[in-house]
Amino acid sequence: MPDVIALLTDFGTQDAYVAAMRGVIVGGAPQVRLIDITHHVPPQDIYYGAFVLNSVVGVFPPNTVYLAVVDPGVGTDRPALVVTTPDGLFVGPDNGLFSYIYARYGALRAMSDRRIPPVVQAAPAPGGVQAHHITNDSLFRHPVSRTFHGRDIFSPVAAFLATGGSPDDVGPAVASVQAYGPPQPLRGQQGAVLGRVVHIDSYGNLITNLREPDLPGSEFRMDVGGHTITHLSESYANGEALLAISGSSGFVEVAAKGGSAAHRLGLGRWAPLLVRPPASATLRG
Amino acid sequence: MPDVIALLTDFGTQDAYVAAMRGVIVGGAPQVRLIDITHHVPPQDIYYGAFVLNSVVGVFPPNTVYLAVVDPGVGTDRPALVVTTPDGLFVGPDNGLFSYIYARYGALRAMSDRRIPPVVQAAPAPGGVQAHHITNDSLFRHPVSRTFHGRDIFSPVAAFLATGGSPDDVGPAVASVQAYGPPQPLRGQQGAVLGRVVHIDSYGNLITNLREPDLPGSEFRMDVGGHTITHLSESYANGEALLAISGSSGFVEVAAKGGSAAHRLGLGRWAPLLVRPPASATLRG
Amino acid sequence: MPDVIALLTDFGTQDAYVAAMRGVIVGGAPQVRLIDITHHVPPQDIYYGAFVLNSVVGVFPPNTVYLAVVDPGVGTDRPALVVTTPDGLFVGPDNGLFSYIYARYGALRAMSDRRIPPVVQAAPAPGGVQAHHITNDSLFRHPVSRTFHGRDIFSPVAAFLATGGSPDDVGPAVASVQAYGPPQPLRGQQGAVLGRVVHIDSYGNLITNLREPDLPGSEFRMDVGGHTITHLSESYANGEALLAISGSSGFVEVAAKGGSAAHRLGLGRWAPLLVRPPASATLRG
Repeated sequence: MPDVIALLTDFGTQDAYVAAMRGVIVGGAPQVRLIDITHHVPPQDIYYGAFVLNSVVGVFPPNTVYLAVVDPGVGTDRPALVVTTPDGLFVGPDNGLFSYIYARYGALRAMSDRRIPPVVQAAPAPGGVQAHHITNDSLFRHPVSRTFHGRDIFSPVAAFLATGGSPDDVGPAVASVQAYGPPQPLRGQQGAVLGRVVHIDSYGNLITNLREPDLPGSEFRMDVGGHTITHLSESYANGEALLAISGSSGFVEVAAKGGSAAHRLGLGRWAPLLVRPPASATLRG
Repeated sequence: MPDVIALLTDFGTQDAYVAAMRGVIVGGAPQVRLIDITHHVPPQDIYYGAFVLNSVVGVFPPNTVYLAVVDPGVGTDRPALVVTTPDGLFVGPDNGLFSYIYARYGALRAMSDRRIPPVVQAAPAPGGVQAHHITNDSLFRHPVSRTFHGRDIFSPVAAFLATGGSPDDVGPAVASVQAYGPPQPLRGQQGAVLGRVVHIDSYGNLITNLREPDLPGSEFRMDVGGHTITHLSESYANGEALLAISGSSGFVEVAAKGGSAAHRLGLGRWAPLLVRPPASATLRG
Repeated sequence: MPDVIALLTDFGTQDAYVAAMRGVIVGGAPQVRLIDITHHVPPQDIYYGAFVLNSVVGVFPPNTVYLAVVDPGVGTDRPALVVTTPDGLFVGPDNGLFSYIYARYGALRAMSDRRIPPVVQAAPAPGGVQAHHITNDSLFRHPVSRTFHGRDIFSPVAAFLATGGSPDDVGPAVASVQAYGPPQPLRGQQGAVLGRVVHIDSYGNLITNLREPDLPGSEFRMDVGGHTITHLSESYANGEALLAISGSSGFVEVAAKGGSAAHRLGLGRWAPLLVRPPASATLRG
């Protein structure tokens, strides 16, 4: 089975930036399958990229090298990383883009503050994820440009790994990497739970950090942007004009029929949702 | 020759929805060629998707599995289909998206009403097209999400078919499927023909249901949106500001030089065009 | 190592135009790697296409067939070309789209006038580039549409070349092709140099025809759109709000932090930049 390189960037597809990465990869790894995740991450939006990247991990086969470049710090001294996991290798800048990956394998330390999203550190550990800095410049394309490490560093390293190269030959293992903490649901009194919007997709659907078991039951009172939603719908087509549904990534999302829930509710990423048991249930309790 | 899976969706390319389908396919069918048709069908526009899909049938090789997901009814009880034809297999929802495919192989029954476009039923028949419902859930990706059958049902079924699986193993053959009738030219008196716009491409070109032999001759009087066109141009570059040309899909299209004919004429899909012989010819006749 | 076909068009990705080219190629060259450069060249913008195409030459492996279709003259008598170079083969219309390729191998004759950009002729020569007209219609897809040579002529010819076909079998060698002259920096008195914007990328970065050695030193006075820039920045992140940087294609570019330099400065392609030594240096000299 040929290895796979899956690309995610914020480069768009109008210019030759993505094409240059593809060219380096097909030159260095001619037999590898090259698949696009997306190149339309909003420019420099690490949170967006981190969410989208995470949503395909485990969907691609485990012999996948995820090459992710959302890199506002290119040319500064931010390190470059290879992260090794049971679901594949991850190549990209050390700027929080792999936060969900660390969380997935339990490598996030306790959150260090109350900012939203919390800024934390991840501590790779044997058996879970491992991280290596990318320092072996014999692997790079030369001359290395200041502004395009995607082409000159990340792509040749991804090709090296996809053709059997070892992360140990890329650079030293490191014990700490940058991460932000995807906010967790907070539980209150009387069965209330406070969730947050963690992603807004291109349709304007509000994807939350709540899973179906986080809800107080099949009936509830979800206050979101001044509206109240009382149950999960079974499909977009059969739902109300404003509905909540258990989405394809396993999280509850709020959608507006035929439009953008984000625009309709005037909500952005990190907006809160308060979910409580229905009034009658509370009275009964 | 490796099999081909050709993808068409309305998912856009900003989020991970298409990527998830690609991931399932490369995991399930590692040797298959995965080619994009488009992912920019306007959201839930089945007519647009049906036209674009049809325009590449016969251009791809016959060992192609066309995987088409424009699916406003996802999560409802609309069936899922595999359609078998001499030009390839088609996988997607049973909602009219394959109407042109049925028409191509003579499987459309007489139109049932005068709506535009006519809503009809297609009756697959041995020797032409065959249709199977997708019901064998041992092929699916589990858990099957309510909102993303593209990833959990259609992609693994396409991978199964592209690696040699039989439509008979996907589910039962069915005798009737949903379709709409692409409107046919109507012939009037004195050589007149009434056509319709059936597709507006991303340039704003108006693609009609008229082929060159449908026209009354090399000179004619085509009334469209208050303008009159008198002949077919040989090229966009050499034509008038508003021109008609025999387009690449074999149909006559109306184009505006350096702009959108749809905007300029204020016309939408299903708009009528009346084409008559030129006045002098009529007088002579 | 399988051959590569790299596609560049202005067709966008909403319709089936690119998909039809892909379908012809996977049918005719099933083992070839098919890679997109971009399909979002602004419609009919030959200069944009020429710049983007050139920026990936030498990045892809030398067994690449570059298939480039920005073709406002489709259906007229403009010839179709195969251009042979040490870095790969180029297939497309003879309309200037390959101007940078000719310049790269020294095939541009002296500029013939003072228009910007200069219109020139390129004279292919043995040892550098060679050019053949595409005339062998046994290679074409029939019937050949008037409006879509990308599908019916260029794609099957690219597939023929990528599977070992010779340019000699495509049509006659020709001694002259269309080109425009990418403007060269002009040197003035006292170390001044006049550059020009030759490309504006999708971020609004202004890419010039100046390389770092063209500048008067590490400090300078660059007048661009009413602003003055005094040095090259090391990274986007560490630079000023309006900065100049040595970009990934080897040329100096002007960027605005978090926005479009083109919009901010109100500049378009071919806008001039005057770069002089800093005032103190001039006084010292």
